Amino acid sequence: MKIGFVVYEGMTALDLIGVYDPLIRLKTMGFIPELSWDICAYASGVRDSSGLAFIPTRVRESLGGHEMIVVPGGSGSRKLVNDADFIEWLKTAEPCRLKVSVCTGSLLLGAAGFLRGKKATTHPEAFGELREFCSSVVDKRIVDEGDVITARGVSSSIDLGLYLCERLAGRDAEERIRRQIDYPYR
Amino acid sequence: MKIGFVVYEGMTALDLIGVYDPLIRLKTMGFIPELSWDICAYASGVRDSSGLAFIPTRVRESLGGHEMIVVPGGSGSRKLVNDADFIEWLKTAEPCRLKVSVCTGSLLLGAAGFLRGKKATTHPEAFGELREFCSSVVDKRIVDEGDVITARGVSSSIDLGLYLCERLAGRDAEERIRRQIDYPYR
Repeated sequence: MKIGFVVYEGMTALDLIGVYDPLIRLKTMGFIPELSWDICAYASGVRDSSGLAFIPTRVRESLGGHEMIVVPGGSGSRKLVNDADFIEWLKTAEPCRLKVSVCTGSLLLGAAGFLRGKKATTHPEAFGELREFCSSVVDKRIVDEGDVITARGVSSSIDLGLYLCERLAGRDAEERIRRQIDYPYR
Repeated sequence: MKIGFVVYEGMTALDLIGVYDPLIRLKTMGFIPELSWDICAYASGVRDSSGLAFIPTRVRESLGGHEMIVVPGGSGSRKLVNDADFIEWLKTAEPCRLKVSVCTGSLLLGAAGFLRGKKATTHPEAFGELREFCSSVVDKRIVDEGDVITARGVSSSIDLGLYLCERLAGRDAEERIRRQIDYPYR
Protein backbone atom coordinates (compact mmCIF):
# COMPACT_ATOMS: atom_id res chain seq x y z
CA MET A 1 0.00 0.00 0.00
CA LYS A 2 1.70 3.17 -1.21
CA ILE A 3 0.18 6.64 -0.95
CA GLY A 4 1.18 9.69 -2.96
CA PHE A 5 0.44 12.94 -1.16
CA VAL A 6 0.38 15.67 -3.81
CA VAL A 7 1.69 19.09 -2.75
CA TYR A 8 1.78 22.30 -4.77
CA GLU A 9 2.38 26.02 -4.42
CA GLY A 10 -0.60 27.71 -2.79
CA MET A 11 -2.19 24.60 -1.30
CA THR A 12 -3.89 24.75 2.10
CA ALA A 13 -1.69 22.92 4.59
CA LEU A 14 -4.61 21.69 6.71
CA ASP A 15 -6.21 20.04 3.66
CA LEU A 16 -3.11 17.87 3.44
CA ILE A 17 -2.23 17.33 7.09
CA GLY A 18 -5.79 16.56 8.21
CA VAL A 19 -5.91 13.46 6.02
CA TYR A 20 -2.18 12.66 6.28
CA ASP A 21 -2.29 12.30 10.07
CA PRO A 22 -4.90 9.50 10.37
CA LEU A 23 -3.59 7.68 7.26
CA ILE A 24 0.00 7.60 8.53
CA ARG A 25 -1.23 6.12 11.81
CA LEU A 26 -2.40 3.07 9.85
CA LYS A 27 1.31 2.28 9.75
CA THR A 28 2.60 3.72 13.02
CA MET A 29 -0.19 2.07 15.03
CA GLY A 30 0.40 -1.25 13.27
CA PHE A 31 -2.77 -1.69 11.21
CA ILE A 32 -1.04 -1.64 7.79
CA PRO A 33 2.68 -2.15 8.57
CA GLU A 34 3.66 -2.18 4.90
CA LEU A 35 2.13 1.27 4.29
CA SER A 36 4.52 3.74 2.68
CA TRP A 37 4.09 7.17 1.15
CA ASP A 38 5.70 9.87 -0.92
CA ILE A 39 5.26 13.63 -0.88
CA CYS A 40 4.86 14.29 -4.59
CA ALA A 41 5.24 17.59 -6.40
CA TYR A 42 5.58 18.82 -9.96
CA ALA A 43 7.94 21.62 -8.84
CA SER A 44 10.59 21.36 -6.14
CA GLY A 45 9.84 24.62 -4.31
CA VAL A 46 6.43 24.26 -2.72
CA ARG A 47 4.82 26.52 -0.14
CA ASP A 48 1.31 26.60 1.22
CA SER A 49 -0.91 29.64 0.62
CA SER A 50 0.75 31.42 3.58
CA GLY A 51 4.37 30.62 2.77
CA LEU A 52 4.97 27.49 4.84
CA ALA A 53 7.48 25.35 2.95
CA PHE A 54 6.96 21.68 2.17
CA ILE A 55 9.73 19.45 0.88
CA PRO A 56 8.61 16.85 -1.65
CA THR A 57 10.27 13.45 -1.70
CA ARG A 58 9.41 12.94 -5.41
CA VAL A 59 9.51 15.73 -7.98
CA ARG A 60 7.98 15.41 -11.46
CA GLU A 61 7.89 11.60 -11.25
CA SER A 62 4.93 9.57 -12.43
CA LEU A 63 2.19 9.17 -9.83
CA GLY A 64 1.10 5.88 -11.35
CA GLY A 65 2.99 3.64 -8.92
CA HIS A 66 0.83 4.65 -5.96
CA GLU A 67 -2.29 2.80 -4.96
CA MET A 68 -3.81 6.05 -3.74
CA ILE A 69 -3.19 9.73 -4.41
CA VAL A 70 -4.36 12.49 -2.08
CA VAL A 71 -4.86 15.97 -3.54
CA PRO A 72 -5.38 18.92 -1.18
CA GLY A 73 -7.16 22.15 -2.10
CA GLY A 74 -6.11 25.73 -1.68
CA SER A 75 -6.04 29.00 -3.61
CA GLY A 76 -3.24 27.63 -5.81
CA SER A 77 -5.61 25.03 -7.26
CA ARG A 78 -7.48 27.74 -9.20
CA LYS A 79 -4.34 28.57 -11.18
CA LEU A 80 -3.26 24.94 -11.66
CA VAL A 81 -6.62 23.95 -13.14
CA ASN A 82 -5.43 25.82 -16.24
CA ASP A 83 -1.79 24.73 -16.06
CA ALA A 84 -1.53 22.14 -18.84
CA ASP A 85 1.84 20.81 -17.67
CA PHE A 86 0.68 20.26 -14.09
CA ILE A 87 -2.55 18.61 -15.22
CA GLU A 88 -0.64 16.32 -17.61
CA TRP A 89 1.51 15.28 -14.67
CA LEU A 90 -1.55 14.70 -12.48
CA LYS A 91 -2.98 12.48 -15.22
CA THR A 92 -0.13 10.03 -14.56
CA ALA A 93 -2.23 9.02 -11.52
CA GLU A 94 -4.71 7.36 -13.88
CA PRO A 95 -3.70 3.78 -12.83
CA CYS A 96 -4.05 4.58 -9.08
CA ARG A 97 -6.84 2.53 -7.52
CA LEU A 98 -7.99 5.41 -5.33
CA LYS A 99 -7.96 9.13 -6.08
CA VAL A 100 -9.02 11.33 -3.22
CA SER A 101 -9.22 15.08 -2.73
CA VAL A 102 -10.00 17.66 -0.07
CA CYS A 103 -11.69 21.00 -0.74
CA THR A 104 -10.78 22.49 -4.15
CA GLY A 105 -8.42 19.58 -4.76
CA SER A 106 -11.44 18.11 -6.55
CA LEU A 107 -11.10 20.83 -9.22
CA LEU A 108 -7.66 19.38 -9.97
CA LEU A 109 -8.99 15.80 -10.08
CA GLY A 110 -11.70 17.18 -12.36
CA ALA A 111 -9.29 18.99 -14.69
CA ALA A 112 -7.39 15.70 -15.02
CA GLY A 113 -10.63 14.02 -16.12
CA PHE A 114 -10.94 11.76 -13.07
CA LEU A 115 -14.43 12.99 -12.12
CA ARG A 116 -16.06 12.39 -15.51
CA GLY A 117 -19.48 10.77 -14.99
CA LYS A 118 -19.04 10.82 -11.22
CA LYS A 119 -20.60 12.68 -8.31
CA ALA A 120 -18.22 14.88 -6.32
CA THR A 121 -17.98 17.60 -3.72
CA THR A 122 -15.69 20.51 -2.84
CA HIS A 123 -15.63 23.69 -0.75
CA PRO A 124 -19.14 25.22 -0.97
CA GLU A 125 -17.66 28.35 -2.57
CA ALA A 126 -16.40 26.21 -5.47
CA PHE A 127 -19.57 24.20 -6.17
CA GLY A 128 -20.12 26.22 -9.37
CA GLU A 129 -16.60 25.63 -10.67
CA LEU A 130 -16.78 21.91 -9.95
CA ARG A 131 -19.94 21.39 -12.03
CA GLU A 132 -18.14 21.37 -15.37
CA PHE A 133 -15.94 18.46 -14.30
CA CYS A 134 -18.42 15.92 -12.84
CA SER A 135 -21.91 14.47 -13.30
CA SER A 136 -23.26 16.30 -10.27
CA VAL A 137 -22.04 18.25 -7.26
CA VAL A 138 -23.20 16.76 -3.97
CA ASP A 139 -23.38 18.81 -0.78
CA LYS A 140 -22.04 16.11 1.51
CA ARG A 141 -18.93 16.05 3.70
CA ILE A 142 -17.55 13.02 1.87
CA VAL A 143 -18.63 11.65 -1.52
CA ASP A 144 -17.39 8.12 -2.22
CA GLU A 145 -17.65 7.00 -5.84
CA GLY A 146 -15.59 3.86 -5.40
CA ASP A 147 -12.30 4.78 -7.04
CA VAL A 148 -12.69 8.52 -6.43
CA ILE A 149 -13.50 10.08 -3.07
CA THR A 150 -13.92 13.83 -2.63
CA ALA A 151 -14.35 15.78 0.62
CA ARG A 152 -15.88 19.22 1.22
CA GLY A 153 -14.01 22.20 2.75
CA VAL A 154 -10.65 22.37 4.52
CA SER A 155 -11.38 20.72 7.88
CA SER A 156 -13.26 17.83 6.23
CA SER A 157 -9.74 16.48 5.69
CA ILE A 158 -9.76 14.85 9.15
CA ASP A 159 -13.15 13.24 8.49
CA LEU A 160 -11.84 12.01 5.14
CA GLY A 161 -8.72 10.61 6.77
CA LEU A 162 -10.75 8.64 9.29
CA TYR A 163 -13.19 7.52 6.58
CA LEU A 164 -10.25 6.16 4.58
CA CYS A 165 -8.87 4.42 7.68
CA GLU A 166 -12.17 2.59 8.06
CA ARG A 167 -12.36 1.71 4.37
CA LEU A 168 -8.76 0.49 4.23
CA ALA A 169 -8.41 -1.21 7.63
CA GLY A 170 -11.88 -1.59 9.13
CA ARG A 171 -14.03 -0.08 11.83
CA ASP A 172 -11.84 -1.06 14.78
CA ALA A 173 -8.73 0.53 13.27
CA GLU A 174 -10.65 3.72 12.56
CA GLU A 175 -12.04 3.84 16.08
CA ARG A 176 -8.61 3.41 17.67
CA ILE A 177 -7.06 6.07 15.44
CA ARG A 178 -9.99 8.41 16.11
CA ARG A 179 -9.38 8.05 19.85
CA GLN A 180 -5.63 8.49 19.46
CA ILE A 181 -6.08 11.81 17.66
CA ASP A 182 -8.70 12.75 20.28
CA TYR A 183 -11.41 13.47 17.70
CA PRO A 184 -14.87 13.37 19.28
CA TYR A 185 -16.85 14.45 16.23
CA ARG A 186 -17.20 11.44 13.98
CA MET B 1 0.70 40.86 16.66
CA LYS B 2 3.48 38.38 16.04
CA ILE B 3 3.14 34.63 16.53
CA GLY B 4 5.98 32.15 16.98
CA PHE B 5 5.05 28.64 15.88
CA VAL B 6 7.53 26.29 17.52
CA VAL B 7 8.55 23.23 15.51
CA TYR B 8 10.82 20.36 16.56
CA GLU B 9 11.93 16.90 15.52
CA GLY B 10 9.20 14.36 16.23
CA MET B 11 6.31 16.79 16.57
CA THR B 12 2.87 15.86 15.30
CA ALA B 13 2.17 17.93 12.17
CA LEU B 14 -1.57 18.14 12.78
CA ASP B 15 -1.00 19.64 16.25
CA LEU B 16 0.72 22.54 14.51
CA ILE B 17 -1.32 22.91 11.32
CA GLY B 18 -4.71 22.62 13.05
CA VAL B 19 -4.07 25.79 15.03
CA TYR B 20 -1.91 27.49 12.36
CA ASP B 21 -4.69 27.42 9.76
CA PRO B 22 -7.38 29.40 11.63
CA LEU B 23 -4.82 31.82 13.14
CA ILE B 24 -3.27 32.67 9.77
CA ARG B 25 -6.74 33.44 8.41
CA LEU B 26 -6.96 36.29 10.94
CA LYS B 27 -4.57 37.99 8.54
CA THR B 28 -5.57 36.60 5.14
CA MET B 29 -9.27 37.27 5.80
CA GLY B 30 -8.50 40.80 7.02
CA PHE B 31 -9.34 40.62 10.72
CA ILE B 32 -5.80 41.37 11.96
CA PRO B 33 -3.95 42.73 8.90
CA GLU B 34 -0.74 43.38 10.86
CA LEU B 35 -0.49 39.74 11.99
CA SER B 36 2.85 38.13 11.24
CA TRP B 37 4.49 34.90 12.29
CA ASP B 38 7.69 32.92 12.39
CA ILE B 39 8.31 29.19 12.26
CA CYS B 40 10.77 28.83 15.15
CA ALA B 41 13.10 25.95 15.85
CA TYR B 42 16.09 25.21 18.04
CA ALA B 43 17.63 23.00 15.32
CA SER B 44 17.51 23.63 11.58
CA GLY B 45 16.57 20.13 10.44
CA VAL B 46 13.07 19.45 11.69
CA ARG B 47 10.76 16.60 10.71
CA ASP B 48 7.45 15.49 12.14
CA SER B 49 7.14 12.07 13.78
CA SER B 50 6.69 10.47 10.34
CA GLY B 51 9.49 12.23 8.51
CA LEU B 52 7.69 15.19 6.92
CA ALA B 53 10.15 18.06 6.78
CA PHE B 54 9.41 21.56 8.06
CA ILE B 55 11.62 24.54 7.33
CA PRO B 56 11.92 27.00 10.18
CA THR B 57 12.25 30.73 9.42
CA ARG B 58 14.07 31.36 12.73
CA VAL B 59 16.62 28.98 14.23
CA ARG B 60 17.87 29.27 17.80
CA GLU B 61 16.71 32.87 18.11
CA SER B 62 15.00 34.21 21.22
CA LEU B 63 11.24 33.63 21.26
CA GLY B 64 10.72 36.69 23.46
CA GLY B 65 9.77 39.05 20.63
CA HIS B 66 6.53 37.22 19.89
CA GLU B 67 3.24 38.12 21.52
CA MET B 68 2.21 34.47 21.35
CA ILE B 69 4.01 31.16 21.03
CA VAL B 70 2.31 27.97 19.87
CA VAL B 71 3.86 24.65 20.92
CA PRO B 72 2.63 21.43 19.28
CA GLY B 73 2.87 17.98 20.81
CA GLY B 74 4.21 14.74 19.42
CA SER B 75 6.41 11.83 20.43
CA GLY B 76 9.47 14.08 20.21
CA SER B 77 8.21 16.13 23.16
CA ARG B 78 8.95 13.26 25.55
CA LYS B 79 12.66 13.47 24.73
CA LEU B 80 12.80 17.27 24.71
CA VAL B 81 11.29 17.53 28.19
CA ASN B 82 14.71 16.35 29.39
CA ASP B 83 16.78 18.32 26.87
CA ALA B 84 18.19 21.16 28.96
CA ASP B 85 19.36 23.17 25.93
CA PHE B 86 15.97 23.02 24.21
CA ILE B 87 14.14 23.92 27.42
CA GLU B 88 16.50 26.84 28.07
CA TRP B 89 15.67 28.08 24.58
CA LEU B 90 11.93 27.64 25.17
CA LYS B 91 12.27 29.71 28.35
CA THR B 92 13.16 32.71 26.17
CA ALA B 93 9.38 32.84 25.55
CA GLU B 94 8.87 34.07 29.12
CA PRO B 95 7.93 37.64 28.06
CA CYS B 96 5.33 36.39 25.52
CA ARG B 97 1.85 37.51 26.52
CA LEU B 98 0.28 34.20 25.43
CA LYS B 99 1.76 30.72 25.56
CA VAL B 100 -0.36 28.03 24.02
CA SER B 101 0.11 24.32 23.41
CA VAL B 102 -1.59 21.37 21.78
CA CYS B 103 -1.44 17.80 23.08
CA THR B 104 1.90 16.94 24.74
CA GLY B 105 3.17 20.40 23.85
CA SER B 106 1.99 21.24 27.38
CA LEU B 107 4.74 18.99 28.78
CA LEU B 108 7.24 21.33 27.11
CA LEU B 109 5.50 24.44 28.46
CA GLY B 110 5.58 22.67 31.83
CA ALA B 111 9.28 21.79 31.65
CA ALA B 112 9.96 25.46 30.93
CA GLY B 113 8.10 26.38 34.11
CA PHE B 114 5.22 28.16 32.38
CA LEU B 115 2.50 25.99 33.98
CA ARG B 116 3.56 26.52 37.59
CA GLY B 117 0.48 27.16 39.73
CA LYS B 118 -1.82 26.83 36.70
CA LYS B 119 -4.39 24.35 35.50
CA ALA B 120 -3.59 22.62 32.22
CA THR B 121 -4.53 19.78 29.90
CA THR B 122 -2.82 17.47 27.39
CA HIS B 123 -3.43 14.22 25.51
CA PRO B 124 -5.29 11.88 27.94
CA GLU B 125 -2.38 9.41 27.74
CA ALA B 126 -0.07 12.08 29.19
CA PHE B 127 -2.26 13.29 32.07
CA GLY B 128 0.08 11.55 34.53
CA GLU B 129 3.22 13.13 33.11
CA LEU B 130 1.66 16.58 33.09
CA ARG B 131 0.82 16.50 36.81
CA GLU B 132 4.33 17.33 37.99
CA PHE B 133 4.35 20.57 36.01
CA CYS B 134 1.03 22.23 36.93
CA SER B 135 -1.40 22.81 39.81
CA SER B 136 -3.95 20.38 38.38
CA VAL B 137 -4.68 18.51 35.17
CA VAL B 138 -8.10 19.31 33.76
CA ASP B 139 -9.92 16.95 31.39
CA LYS B 140 -11.24 19.65 29.08
CA ARG B 141 -10.67 20.27 25.37
CA ILE B 142 -9.23 23.72 26.06
CA VAL B 143 -7.98 25.11 29.38
CA ASP B 144 -7.56 28.91 29.40
CA GLU B 145 -5.52 30.29 32.29
CA GLY B 146 -5.21 33.78 30.88
CA ASP B 147 -1.63 33.91 29.70
CA VAL B 148 -1.36 30.14 29.14
CA ILE B 149 -3.83 28.09 27.12
CA THR B 150 -3.47 24.33 26.70
CA ALA B 151 -5.51 22.00 24.48
CA ARG B 152 -6.09 18.25 24.75
CA GLY B 153 -5.11 15.69 22.05
CA VAL B 154 -4.01 16.19 18.44
CA SER B 155 -7.24 17.25 16.72
CA SER B 156 -8.11 19.71 19.49
CA SER B 157 -5.69 21.96 17.60
CA ILE B 158 -8.49 23.17 15.30
CA ASP B 159 -10.75 23.93 18.27
CA LEU B 160 -7.86 25.79 19.90
CA GLY B 161 -7.22 27.77 16.71
CA LEU B 162 -10.84 28.88 16.52
CA TYR B 163 -10.92 29.62 20.25
CA LEU B 164 -7.88 31.88 19.81
CA CYS B 165 -9.51 33.58 16.81
CA GLU B 166 -12.48 34.47 19.00
CA ARG B 167 -10.30 35.64 21.86
CA LEU B 168 -8.06 37.75 19.62
CA ALA B 169 -10.58 39.12 17.12
CA GLY B 170 -14.08 38.46 18.45
CA ARG B 171 -17.02 36.19 17.84
CA ASP B 172 -17.81 37.37 14.31
CA ALA B 173 -14.25 36.78 13.09
CA GLU B 174 -14.26 33.30 14.61
CA GLU B 175 -17.60 32.47 13.02
CA ARG B 176 -16.48 33.58 9.56
CA ILE B 177 -13.21 31.64 9.82
CA ARG B 178 -15.08 28.58 11.10
CA ARG B 179 -17.33 28.69 8.04
CA GLN B 180 -14.40 29.27 5.70
CA ILE B 181 -12.64 26.15 6.95
CA ASP B 182 -15.97 24.30 6.79
CA TYR B 183 -15.86 23.20 10.44
CA PRO B 184 -19.33 22.25 11.69
CA TYR B 185 -18.29 21.03 15.14
CA ARG B 186 -17.76 24.07 17.29
